[in-house]
Amino acid sequence: MNVIVWNEYYHERRHPEICEFYPGGIHGYLQSVLECDDVEVSTATLDDPECGLTDETLDQTDVLVWWGHAKHHLVPDEVVERVYKHVIAGMGLIVLHSGHFSKIFRRLMGTSCTLKWRAKDKERVWTVMPEHPIAKGVPESFSLDPEEMYGERFDIPAPEELIFLGWFKGGEIFRSGCTWRRGHGKIFYFQPGHEDYPTFCNENIQTILRNAVRWACPEEKNIAVDFPNNIFKLIYMNFHLFYNI
Amino acid sequence: MNVIVWNEYYHERRHPEICEFYPGGIHGYLQSVLECDDVEVSTATLDDPECGLTDETLDQTDVLVWWGHAKHHLVPDEVVERVYKHVIAGMGLIVLHSGHFSKIFRRLMGTSCTLKWRAKDKERVWTVMPEHPIAKGVPESFSLDPEEMYGERFDIPAPEELIFLGWFKGGEIFRSGCTWRRGHGKIFYFQPGHEDYPTFCNENIQTILRNAVRWACPEEKNIAVDFPNNIFKLIYMNFHLFYNI
Amino acid sequence: MNVIVWNEYYHERRHPEICEFYPGGIHGYLQSVLECDDVEVSTATLDDPECGLTDETLDQTDVLVWWGHAKHHLVPDEVVERVYKHVIAGMGLIVLHSGHFSKIFRRLMGTSCTLKWRAKDKERVWTVMPEHPIAKGVPESFSLDPEEMYGERFDIPAPEELIFLGWFKGGEIFRSGCTWRRGHGKIFYFQPGHEDYPTFCNENIQTILRNAVRWACPEEKNIAVDFPNNIFKLIYMNFHLFYNI
Amino acid sequence: MNVIVWNEYYHERRHPEICEFYPGGIHGYLQSVLECDDVEVSTATLDDPECGLTDETLDQTDVLVWWGHAKHHLVPDEVVERVYKHVIAGMGLIVLHSGHFSKIFRRLMGTSCTLKWRAKDKERVWTVMPEHPIAKGVPESFSLDPEEMYGERFDIPAPEELIFLGWFKGGEIFRSGCTWRRGHGKIFYFQPGHEDYPTFCNENIQTILRNAVRWACPEEKNIAVDFPNNIFKLIYMNFHLFYNI
Repeated sequence: MNVIVWNEYYHERRHPEICEFYPGGIHGYLQSVLECDDVEVSTATLDDPECGLTDETLDQTDVLVWWGHAKHHLVPDEVVERVYKHVIAGMGLIVLHSGHFSKIFRRLMGTSCTLKWRAKDKERVWTVMPEHPIAKGVPESFSLDPEEMYGERFDIPAPEELIFLGWFKGGEIFRSGCTWRRGHGKIFYFQPGHEDYPTFCNENIQTILRNAVRWACPEEKNIAVDFPNNIFKLIYMNFHLFYNI
Repeated sequence: MNVIVWNEYYHERRHPEICEFYPGGIHGYLQSVLECDDVEVSTATLDDPECGLTDETLDQTDVLVWWGHAKHHLVPDEVVERVYKHVIAGMGLIVLHSGHFSKIFRRLMGTSCTLKWRAKDKERVWTVMPEHPIAKGVPESFSLDPEEMYGERFDIPAPEELIFLGWFKGGEIFRSGCTWRRGHGKIFYFQPGHEDYPTFCNENIQTILRNAVRWACPEEKNIAVDFPNNIFKLIYMNFHLFYNI
Repeated sequence: MNVIVWNEYYHERRHPEICEFYPGGIHGYLQSVLECDDVEVSTATLDDPECGLTDETLDQTDVLVWWGHAKHHLVPDEVVERVYKHVIAGMGLIVLHSGHFSKIFRRLMGTSCTLKWRAKDKERVWTVMPEHPIAKGVPESFSLDPEEMYGERFDIPAPEELIFLGWFKGGEIFRSGCTWRRGHGKIFYFQPGHEDYPTFCNENIQTILRNAVRWACPEEKNIAVDFPNNIFKLIYMNFHLFYNI
Repeated sequence: MNVIVWNEYYHERRHPEICEFYPGGIHGYLQSVLECDDVEVSTATLDDPECGLTDETLDQTDVLVWWGHAKHHLVPDEVVERVYKHVIAGMGLIVLHSGHFSKIFRRLMGTSCTLKWRAKDKERVWTVMPEHPIAKGVPESFSLDPEEMYGERFDIPAPEELIFLGWFKGGEIFRSGCTWRRGHGKIFYFQPGHEDYPTFCNENIQTILRNAVRWACPEEKNIAVDFPNNIFKLIYMNFHLFYNI
């Protein structure tokens, strides 16, 4: 299985104190978390040519993990459209924390993806679907102290599966772990992961991310075969449009 | 629209101090809350013959509101089956608080309906589907202090709509307002409403219950017409079974 | 309630024989179908300035009905974005037939919305959710002969409600009547309605469309109040983004 | 992985001509279809003591496949309750064809599970979720000629996933492949499989059943550990009930 961790890689360079948690950036840290015998993980960042997300790269990718926050608007629309097509063709997508506002997540959801937020609070993550593969080995609840508060109403389409709920000491709740399918691709949004706190060092968070990557991996890994198929349908339909005129 | 509020009516008589909140029992109180120009509300309790739920009564009923707690096991199975058939035929059902463990709710859900609980906590109810008719006029969040804590994991089928989430000061969360359809009937489960606290006196709770009753009312009020139809299908199928032997 | 029927109004002018069914175009015909005591219906077409869909107009609109086919690409992106924001803010949207490929539907679904098609077949529409308000008064099944065949796989997010299924004589099936929510808005996609056949003259089709318009109408009709709210949240979030940099 | 195929084993003995397709009964045939390197398959029938479904047996079972038709009423309620608890605890359940009317399926669905039927028709099965693990290797559509017609409205709770749709030459459609979760258990209902026709000899049907068994297998195979947990919660709740009285 081939995974890419994408990171805008901005905060870590501007605020090097973050690198205490994440030497080599969030992407580098997550790479080390996710890599194992049968999972190869590479990374890509905003500054790479084409954001490191060419068709050649995405053709080889089973699951894309996305972390972005302050620079969503700098991801070119054509890169977003390329990632979008690969998700529709079957590539899994894991969107982390502030990635809720990324172009690719909003493109796939079709909603504003707005939410409430407040700095530094204590969170308790509850597992409401313990039987789900993403929750395998995850306790009934665990704490993150501190984590940034994300609160409802989160403007998303009704999740197809609601796996985790977040409780915040300050009084808010959040649908913290949600799945959807778009086309042939599986999508998992997971709320924890603020850049100022060592969230990704938490053992339960790591278990969830490892599970999520396996869950999001498409049945048919050769998505290159599937993708032209889709394109064909599009051409077929366009032919239809002209034929009828 | 015709509504029946059903109450086991046990705690109020054994612990008369509860009657300070609910003169005439929870059923009597809810009757006064729900009654209005176009909504006629009657009541029924465990001690009534057939629990007050004969076919004649249910034929005339659009929505049944259910409150029970300590005496679920005393509701006869044939009454449960009768209510069940009316829900399948289109009667709305609102299940309140400890009614999660009633025979009728478990019959319709097909799950154990277990949950966590703890006495006396502060709850904050969050509206996650503000656009839903049951949430009309309900603020983004409101507090109940005290309310009994109900916590996840709540063993229910995935709700078709998740309208409210409950936050508890002690650290738990709960899917507090959920809907499902079974047959032609609409079901709303709502978590607040412990007998020891004046929950039903809360203005927002009253708004939600009034909305829920309207939402659960079937499109076709003459469920008597629909019900034999269903029976017919059952007979038709049984014929099938024998025919094939 | 205020409804706008939008039509690209191309086929009727190029192929005037269609006007036998729909004098004044599909939009004019649907206007006459939908108009009644408490429903005011106006129309808009591709050739109107701003496609007839300014913010002033949409502010006054509860439900937008969309018919388009050959000219989806001519609807300006800023009009699509404007309609999109109004749906997120609560405006209902009914998308008919070939509108599956409209920019606005694809924007809200987040998928390719591709499907199979074949000219002229016999369709039988089956009601799988007879209890749904959109199915009120609609028989268990009814025929459309001819109708264009639309077949699976239809690349849409899993419908929140699947109300109608289409059977085609040539061997295909289709999820013909589906609902979703996006933001505060309700969306209904309905497959029948090819321009070459008198589909909209069918009494059951008319019942469904009248029901759909009532179903899609938002609880809070003053969506102008809701909309700035949403904008505020967006500004609030953007502030967040800059604050963190 | 351990699988049990349960069969009422009535038609095959009364109408031995069926044994041409299914030497040793439907259960024996399905055993040979499902068995492979890492899947051990045993069988059980109505005539076995306790229907062959004791707690000891079910404790060792990951997935139960159910075929029944004319003798649903002869399955003792305590066996149904035992199977039910194992599904809630995580055991997968595959319900085939006329098993829609089995006690266990109706218990888990909470609806009447009625449907339409007609003898001998041609069916075409369409894959509407090609990306689902149960559809892996299954073509876009395939034919069964003959198969018994099952038609809507099928009175089930809205499927969590709708994987296959059935088209029948006579004019009906059916939600032929549906999934739900109940407690920790996954459930797949699949419509084809009438005893008079060689449906289970079809290669695509066999692929689907093999896939379904893998899909329904719980993450945590040691369901014995999980089950007491559930029981504990139930006791805990009952304590609650008495404590409050």
